[in-house]
Amino acid sequence: MPYMPVTESMFLIAETREQPMHAGGLQLFIPREGQSATELAEEIVETFHSCADIRPLFRKRPASPAALLGTLAWSYDDEIDVDYHVRRAVLPRPGRIRELLRYVSLNHSALLDRTRPMWELHIIEGLDDGRVAIYTKIHHSLVDGISALRLLENSLSPDPNDRTGTAWWDTALLRRRPPRETTGASLRSRLTAPLGQALNLTGQIVGAGPAAAKIAWAGITDDAFAPPFVPAPNTILDVPIGSARRFAAQQWPRQRLDAVGQALDITLNDVVVTMCAGALRAYLIDQDALPDDPLIAAMPVSTRTDKSSEGNAVTAIMANLATDQPDPERRLAAVIASTRKAKQVIRGLSPLQALAFGAATFAPLALAPIPGFVRSTPPQFNVLISNVPGPSRPMYWNGAALDGCYPVSIAMHGQALNITLTTTADQVNFGLIGARKELPSLQRILTHLDTALDDLEKVAGVRPLRSVP
Amino acid sequence: MPYMPVTESMFLIAETREQPMHAGGLQLFIPREGQSATELAEEIVETFHSCADIRPLFRKRPASPAALLGTLAWSYDDEIDVDYHVRRAVLPRPGRIRELLRYVSLNHSALLDRTRPMWELHIIEGLDDGRVAIYTKIHHSLVDGISALRLLENSLSPDPNDRTGTAWWDTALLRRRPPRETTGASLRSRLTAPLGQALNLTGQIVGAGPAAAKIAWAGITDDAFAPPFVPAPNTILDVPIGSARRFAAQQWPRQRLDAVGQALDITLNDVVVTMCAGALRAYLIDQDALPDDPLIAAMPVSTRTDKSSEGNAVTAIMANLATDQPDPERRLAAVIASTRKAKQVIRGLSPLQALAFGAATFAPLALAPIPGFVRSTPPQFNVLISNVPGPSRPMYWNGAALDGCYPVSIAMHGQALNITLTTTADQVNFGLIGARKELPSLQRILTHLDTALDDLEKVAGVRPLRSVP
Repeated sequence: MPYMPVTESMFLIAETREQPMHAGGLQLFIPREGQSATELAEEIVETFHSCADIRPLFRKRPASPAALLGTLAWSYDDEIDVDYHVRRAVLPRPGRIRELLRYVSLNHSALLDRTRPMWELHIIEGLDDGRVAIYTKIHHSLVDGISALRLLENSLSPDPNDRTGTAWWDTALLRRRPPRETTGASLRSRLTAPLGQALNLTGQIVGAGPAAAKIAWAGITDDAFAPPFVPAPNTILDVPIGSARRFAAQQWPRQRLDAVGQALDITLNDVVVTMCAGALRAYLIDQDALPDDPLIAAMPVSTRTDKSSEGNAVTAIMANLATDQPDPERRLAAVIASTRKAKQVIRGLSPLQALAFGAATFAPLALAPIPGFVRSTPPQFNVLISNVPGPSRPMYWNGAALDGCYPVSIAMHGQALNITLTTTADQVNFGLIGARKELPSLQRILTHLDTALDDLEKVAGVRPLRSVP
Repeated sequence: MPYMPVTESMFLIAETREQPMHAGGLQLFIPREGQSATELAEEIVETFHSCADIRPLFRKRPASPAALLGTLAWSYDDEIDVDYHVRRAVLPRPGRIRELLRYVSLNHSALLDRTRPMWELHIIEGLDDGRVAIYTKIHHSLVDGISALRLLENSLSPDPNDRTGTAWWDTALLRRRPPRETTGASLRSRLTAPLGQALNLTGQIVGAGPAAAKIAWAGITDDAFAPPFVPAPNTILDVPIGSARRFAAQQWPRQRLDAVGQALDITLNDVVVTMCAGALRAYLIDQDALPDDPLIAAMPVSTRTDKSSEGNAVTAIMANLATDQPDPERRLAAVIASTRKAKQVIRGLSPLQALAFGAATFAPLALAPIPGFVRSTPPQFNVLISNVPGPSRPMYWNGAALDGCYPVSIAMHGQALNITLTTTADQVNFGLIGARKELPSLQRILTHLDTALDDLEKVAGVRPLRSVP
């Protein structure tokens, strides 16, 4: 019986009914030419149900009895009740994205069964735009976000004429060459890129933006931002939460974010974090709950250097979101200064030290189920913002194009909101998961994200690609 | 802040992720003349969503913080997130009863949110027979099965032309005269009827059945059956369970069961329990798991004497199911003897004593979450069989006829199966809820129930109403 590392068991130990520790994803597929949504859904259901050769990751569950061994060791089921794990759903009319997000919100609130491998896959019909959605739920003790996306990507093909699509758990996929390797852009180099880019602190600033904007964050000093360990303020995000969730999701053209990044010589991640900073400021103002001190965001950083698609390998950097700053340009400068400093801290650590630093950052999670803990302890950070790279080119499953790939992450006691995003070939896909009762009108953050991107485009002096009124 | 009686808080205390303590119901409605299923579903959704005047029972929740006060006291929400509590669903094709039962199975496994009133209502379309289903989930700390059915019944009308249908939680319903009272058959007299009939131990035996059969259970002596406190055998029903459930349901014409009861001078409840005895014997033989000793069933008995539709008022009698007896006639005799004896015990108790006896019977529930408890303690009983009276005449909601009314009860550690049934005007509606992993092919019990009823018809010498091959 294989024993669990603490980076896996912590997600089982910290889990309560109010704080389920599964993450998920929502993928949208366009049926291939001449295929109806119903036909695609049935093709997926039949293919997935008929796959009996299931790789070990999808047969792995906490050992029995759950209370004694279940957080210490894994066991493997020989048979899987596929009818339980693979579910079919139809949205009620009118079948808008709203009904789809509602379906995910309600299902993401429910705990996974610990007496079987802890994953579910829902194939969802009834979207009025003719697409088919797949919502997946998998326990964080099994995979982290990067591993999960790698699983998805490995099951897809860059070739629209490929008809070898199979279930995501098919053992055959383990023998398939990962599509990303064939393009020469290795996952490893992509994952380490954001850290590598932190070296470019003094890099040349190019682009067409106003000079004042460029200078604002080029002239960074150590005094210009809060140190990584500054305490986060108490906010409505740092509260004990109920079990109900609300999921909100939206995608933006990658070109828009890239244009801002190029104009200002900052990374895509910098753009994303600054969008979140602006959106959270606006949302907290809506709620009449903006703290005087700036929000602190934790951003998980992968320390994974192999091609494995199992387990967890994550540390974190802390970013000052400068939500106290009303001016978008100054807010951007403060955010960038803070994340660059934080990346320098991480870069000075060995992989093991980085993991230990991450563990220390997330350690309070394990204490969160203790009554009173959240309320009496100042938060270390207010919100998790996670950027997980997805497939970098158009991908297909049996000819059906992947047209959206949204992460559905974890809200926790003291972390009522999680923002995770996935980059795909042409899109940046944001998935927001929040405590439904504690964060009213969560979906308004999507509008604020759009406004924050507008603001950044103005700072960068780039023209939005869409029509401007 | 009102404090909870232990008969309510015990269901909150005993609840774990593997052992959710909510019960529910599945009702089927036939759209009125000229109305489509979609139109009926939309009418229900709109009516339920537009009811803002919500009676206190549906605004009541465990006080916060849940861990400190939540199992001691109730609080009341002023506002309800109706969009969360009332849900709309569509079954995937082909929309058979099988897809409906699967929907209920999967949703009944999920815990209710404790930070809001603990109930949900799902309006389900997509049945190929044109009916609309309503699946409800309500925490057992709020209501027992009888109260829940009374809530339903109070929202329906015996008049097919009545168009005053409203939400089940509408305060207006509190002022509506309960329809049952208008017929003169009071709930109290119906509930106490089975106990009253126990007095007829020496009653005349009438009917057309074979004489031998009648004599078999007329000649009861105290030696012919196990005493009420005989230990139950260890079976596959008395095991720790996972959180996943399977729900199976079927209805039989009440006339068939009444014919058997009349022929043998036994109650409807006697017929039902003997059907369960035969079905469980056959199922355990299927599973190669029939114990040498007979199964013991606990049958909750209401001690409620008022018209309240809140709270819990339940005791229990123990029945020897004689599953060791291969002969249907001898099995029937042993079951009847045992239940009559048990009823005599209860009849000798005051209402308070009866409740205390019930509490002692169910006390181990509160200990079940403790690791190892179930496995090391001999079970007091193997299965719960509960008979809850439903509406005694045809009932309608805005002209849509109630055409099926199935209970969806609770499985627990050590009680992997629960059989609850509801009698309506013309039908006896069985609902079986079981632990999905621990009780394979649970739905086969339905076939065995039908066979057991056939056997009883032979013993009673009554002709089945359906065509016999």
